[in-house]
Amino acid sequence: MPSKRVDAIQPFFVMDILARARALEAQGRDIIHMEVGEPDFPTPAPVVEAGQRALAEGRTRYTPALGIPELRETVAGWYRERFGVAVSPQRIVITPGSSTGLQMLIGALIDSGERVLLPDPGYPCNRNFVSLYGGEPVSLPVTMANGWVPTPEQIGQQWDSRTRALVIATPSNPTGAVLTLDQLGGISARVAELGGALIVDEIYQGLSYEVEPITALSLDTDYLFVVNSFSKYFGMTGWRIGWLVVPESFVPVMDRLAQNLYLSAPTLAQYAALAAMQPETVAILEERRAEFRRRRDFLYPALQKLGFGLAAKPQGAFYLYADCSQLTDDSFAFCEHLLEAAGVAITPGKDFGLNAPRRYMRFAYTTSVERMQLAIERLGQAIG
Amino acid sequence: MPSKRVDAIQPFFVMDILARARALEAQGRDIIHMEVGEPDFPTPAPVVEAGQRALAEGRTRYTPALGIPELRETVAGWYRERFGVAVSPQRIVITPGSSTGLQMLIGALIDSGERVLLPDPGYPCNRNFVSLYGGEPVSLPVTMANGWVPTPEQIGQQWDSRTRALVIATPSNPTGAVLTLDQLGGISARVAELGGALIVDEIYQGLSYEVEPITALSLDTDYLFVVNSFSKYFGMTGWRIGWLVVPESFVPVMDRLAQNLYLSAPTLAQYAALAAMQPETVAILEERRAEFRRRRDFLYPALQKLGFGLAAKPQGAFYLYADCSQLTDDSFAFCEHLLEAAGVAITPGKDFGLNAPRRYMRFAYTTSVERMQLAIERLGQAIG
Repeated sequence: MPSKRVDAIQPFFVMDILARARALEAQGRDIIHMEVGEPDFPTPAPVVEAGQRALAEGRTRYTPALGIPELRETVAGWYRERFGVAVSPQRIVITPGSSTGLQMLIGALIDSGERVLLPDPGYPCNRNFVSLYGGEPVSLPVTMANGWVPTPEQIGQQWDSRTRALVIATPSNPTGAVLTLDQLGGISARVAELGGALIVDEIYQGLSYEVEPITALSLDTDYLFVVNSFSKYFGMTGWRIGWLVVPESFVPVMDRLAQNLYLSAPTLAQYAALAAMQPETVAILEERRAEFRRRRDFLYPALQKLGFGLAAKPQGAFYLYADCSQLTDDSFAFCEHLLEAAGVAITPGKDFGLNAPRRYMRFAYTTSVERMQLAIERLGQAIG
Repeated sequence: MPSKRVDAIQPFFVMDILARARALEAQGRDIIHMEVGEPDFPTPAPVVEAGQRALAEGRTRYTPALGIPELRETVAGWYRERFGVAVSPQRIVITPGSSTGLQMLIGALIDSGERVLLPDPGYPCNRNFVSLYGGEPVSLPVTMANGWVPTPEQIGQQWDSRTRALVIATPSNPTGAVLTLDQLGGISARVAELGGALIVDEIYQGLSYEVEPITALSLDTDYLFVVNSFSKYFGMTGWRIGWLVVPESFVPVMDRLAQNLYLSAPTLAQYAALAAMQPETVAILEERRAEFRRRRDFLYPALQKLGFGLAAKPQGAFYLYADCSQLTDDSFAFCEHLLEAAGVAITPGKDFGLNAPRRYMRFAYTTSVERMQLAIERLGQAIG
């Protein structure tokens, strides 16, 4: 007798794909993993070394709920140096990963029955956070033709008196779309006019390829909440560490929520993350960014040649969200088929919303060009 | 404009005490900390070493949401060897600390408008978790005279058609009360008759002094949820790692919740925790248990001599919940006064519920006997 709220949470289809992939591997099959939303690079050495030092120094006690002051200052410094934006360290809330951060923001902003606009396709947990807290997630369908970006008009049309917030990601999972600061400014202005909160998911910040990374914090707007993480660009997935930037007035609220929900983020991860933004580490991360770009530049035309539909080359994250309607009318079954026939694991659109999910599949380029070459070869044979 | 739900969460008074204590320390005052719910011992060396090995081996990626299989098996083995109880590793859910575990259980069991019974005084976050999810926390007043344990009759009286669960802790924060397996069995039987879920908080398991630790899993009951943690007995607070034991039928639900709420518990902490239940570590932990006992045996009569009311010696955790009504009619102001006058930080009853909070204060014996001797001396002077 689980609660209705939790019964309504759908399992992620990618988990079935992953389980089947593991079963095939156990039978001796070679599986190429393009379903996984995790960089294949290890945590950069300077960060690991900082973790080792912290452990040797006995940094294993609770920290303040909002995080160690040094890390909050480091993040503020990062905004100043990398983006030229002044953000007070007081506004930085260290979280045990951005999942918790997103969940906290929904809890802090939404009462039962209130609505949150979410671009669709998008990160699937956001819908679930809204539902968990008794709110109503509202799909804002975005299209490849529009660069997967909602327009200010669309936002206005969907907004009503019960709507409290819009969540938008740049770069986006699953589409790889990157917003310009102008686009973000237009959206922000519209949301501000409507009196709502803007939550900007910058979890893939740093992973953009033609353009330099931007932050919504460059905008002149008050009711803005930014979610970020050390997981993707900084390569710290398993450490469970991220941060929020909230308006000054929300800091006490987030402090109380953190004290209740998690007490403090993992202490070792906080000390290790101090090294993540140092030049030595950033040099490593920028090489990785160049490698992700090479992978994308390989995969994008190769998928097009196979008959997958892709508009302009997606500029960020490590995903391509491809239209497979020339090849199948059901991406769910197609992903299952390609796993069995070609040994390539891919995530179907199902996991990312309600907007034509059977027409799309997400390729993650979190594996080497060599492996992707093999994947493309095998996919070519399977598609025939 | 935070949500109503989050606006309703009260800040913990102990945070004010702590902030004031730090300010006094910054002025050069010596403050004895008896307000902190964290052992003063470092993480045991074999656990730190396991963490260092894990780091050297590059264990920094996501794990399965329910935890690494080795750790789930280790916990199952712990129940078998230490408690003689067979628990399938499948039923063990690794969490990033028990705060998250408790929150997940409330989310998984309670729909909006449903009620949860909570012994009062009790762990304050439980009330907040119920409120966060739109439920109604119901105080079950417990008294020193009754050993701080609710009776099956009391539970029956407070139960109604909207009541879904009872949360009970043994050993208890803030009272240090320890239930016998018989008492727990009586409560469990009553809750089962009423058709509800029993959530047993065993976070302080291992820290009991006259009696051997027990677990509710020894009971023959179906609808039982156990919350536990590596923080207190195992000395791993800052690592953020705990576990749940749930009925088999709830495992898929918890898996989906974990995938949304936190992806996976911190990977290093999971690998380090593998060493926490090994004999070499347990030998260290048992020495610490003996030291906590010595501290309690010092503090209990010393507080009585000062005029604090305490019934039978509390048998567990590292807290004494003392009646200060012979000394003051307002424990809140009294705690503030004792901090200023005696330099001793203590948590007032305010943080633990609505049941006569001004009459009680919580002393944590998370500091040495020598420091507590000094505290008692200074308190004696301040009380005069």
